[in-house]
Amino acid sequence: MTIKDIAKACGVSVSTVSRVLNNRPDVSEPVRRKVLDAVEASGYIPNDSARDLVRSRSDALGVVVRGSGNLFFSAVLKTVAREIDRAGYTMVLRYIGEDDDEVKTGAFLEREKKLRGLLFLGGRFDYTPAELATIGVPYVCCSYTNCFGSLAEEDYCSVSIDDQLTAYRAVERLIELGHRRIAVLAPSLDDRSISELRYKGACAALWDHGIEPDPELIEVTGGCFDMPDTYEGMCRILNRGADFTAVFAFSDTTAIAAMKALEEHGRRVPEDCSVIAIDGIAVSEYVSPTLTTMVQPAEEMGREGVRILVDSIEKGQRGCHVVLPTRLRPGGSVRPASK
Amino acid sequence: MTIKDIAKACGVSVSTVSRVLNNRPDVSEPVRRKVLDAVEASGYIPNDSARDLVRSRSDALGVVVRGSGNLFFSAVLKTVAREIDRAGYTMVLRYIGEDDDEVKTGAFLEREKKLRGLLFLGGRFDYTPAELATIGVPYVCCSYTNCFGSLAEEDYCSVSIDDQLTAYRAVERLIELGHRRIAVLAPSLDDRSISELRYKGACAALWDHGIEPDPELIEVTGGCFDMPDTYEGMCRILNRGADFTAVFAFSDTTAIAAMKALEEHGRRVPEDCSVIAIDGIAVSEYVSPTLTTMVQPAEEMGREGVRILVDSIEKGQRGCHVVLPTRLRPGGSVRPASK
Repeated sequence: MTIKDIAKACGVSVSTVSRVLNNRPDVSEPVRRKVLDAVEASGYIPNDSARDLVRSRSDALGVVVRGSGNLFFSAVLKTVAREIDRAGYTMVLRYIGEDDDEVKTGAFLEREKKLRGLLFLGGRFDYTPAELATIGVPYVCCSYTNCFGSLAEEDYCSVSIDDQLTAYRAVERLIELGHRRIAVLAPSLDDRSISELRYKGACAALWDHGIEPDPELIEVTGGCFDMPDTYEGMCRILNRGADFTAVFAFSDTTAIAAMKALEEHGRRVPEDCSVIAIDGIAVSEYVSPTLTTMVQPAEEMGREGVRILVDSIEKGQRGCHVVLPTRLRPGGSVRPASK
Repeated sequence: MTIKDIAKACGVSVSTVSRVLNNRPDVSEPVRRKVLDAVEASGYIPNDSARDLVRSRSDALGVVVRGSGNLFFSAVLKTVAREIDRAGYTMVLRYIGEDDDEVKTGAFLEREKKLRGLLFLGGRFDYTPAELATIGVPYVCCSYTNCFGSLAEEDYCSVSIDDQLTAYRAVERLIELGHRRIAVLAPSLDDRSISELRYKGACAALWDHGIEPDPELIEVTGGCFDMPDTYEGMCRILNRGADFTAVFAFSDTTAIAAMKALEEHGRRVPEDCSVIAIDGIAVSEYVSPTLTTMVQPAEEMGREGVRILVDSIEKGQRGCHVVLPTRLRPGGSVRPASK
């Protein structure tokens, strides 16, 4: 099987096949897909040695994933892997712990693996320019921005949701249904990161509806969105006899852990207590009751993250910030407050 | 920060640090960890260009993951990524669909990325030597073996559980508790793969206890361990009014989907129906009721998979097959059959 056979099978010229294999932009998407499918189906293997003659740099993109138990990140990563591949690069993946430093890891990887670019899946929101100066290649903050930090907007790229607004809408949904005593399970209140944003959004919704956040209903569960930590936090609220009719959890899996604690304390969801969250992972559609949640578009986030990174590398694009919309997925875990 | 500073900080010689950085086997594990931690903490970046002078080949290991929605594989992959890193290699990750051909993908990757080795996370159980001849580097079947195929044992490596025995024990557990009408949700009965093994194990347990498998209680849900497919399969059994007191699902997530269907049909778990599965992923501890399941050791599977692959590459080891034990994690989804 030669490049000529592929061209013939697809009804295109040899130079078109060559352009696709070299990942040039001047090929329409339908033709590109057709050629790539034919290449895969045929078992034809492009001669990389020949390509290496003209391509002097590595084709490695680093992906640093913060927190390996995060099911939402797993969903994004699947798309990231596919899109990096389609763009003709090689993914170098590194998982780090929740408390590890993604910038240091990225800088290390960049040198060790001669990266062309970096995608951070999860990270801190408060970088300084000095910290990021250790990164010498384009990078994209995926699922977060630098809103607490001092990077100039034009000096980095990001794709994220509006965490504050999404939390606001989740809590407002509960308030619209008559809930006023709303428990909040927050990994942290002031970590200058995703938890702080979601906590602020929740408080803003309460204030806007004339409700003062009640410290008795707020439980700090620790920074890692862990199910055991959230389960314990929910138990603490229940054990102190707090009065509430609804719970806002910052992620689907922590909401599932909270529902477990509620049920074990004899509180039925949604009859005795409504539960709402943010994420929209697959399994939360099958727990009982189905979780009502604000869905983050995982696939779009992965696709946009890689697109922005590749544009940064190939077209020198800078300062691109994409904010993706979230949408409410109604489930069975929320219902109107009883009078 | 130089290599001398690292050596001083760790209380070891410069040559020991050098051996660790060059991933030599002649360093004890505690010392290796200590040095690597110090290197990470210090921000010291090894001079790869110098290493490249002596290392002529790539350091890339390919990891082909079959089925990106598999939460058990996500748990294994996290360890695989860490261990490949610790062993001094670079992970090249590719996700493929459930119906894609991992061998073709692996062969393609091997040439395109100049791999040193391949780890298949999920795959077919029925390879022929001709198919695998396209792979020119050592490879490990991770989470499966070639028990339906014709590869010589000494020609490949694997790490897996005993799927048939694990299914046998799950169903036997139900029988011990007095259940005799046991529904089986099987992605396939005869796909010469994981489903066929688990189905055989389930049937063997029934036969050994004098129970004839009842076609009315067996539902084929499609090959992908999908939650929607399993949910539908469970609904079909319920809708035809089949008489059963327990369900065996082949994975945790499919069990969660089955519990959803049962609940929507007014069947309480475990009061009206027990449910048992295989996997032991984190979320199944927090669903309600907690899932009773046979736990596969995800971390050990990832660690062993990489160890075997690295030994194959560096020591020429062949024909290594590790079968890991599973253990019952009792939950709240199983209880004795009512008289």
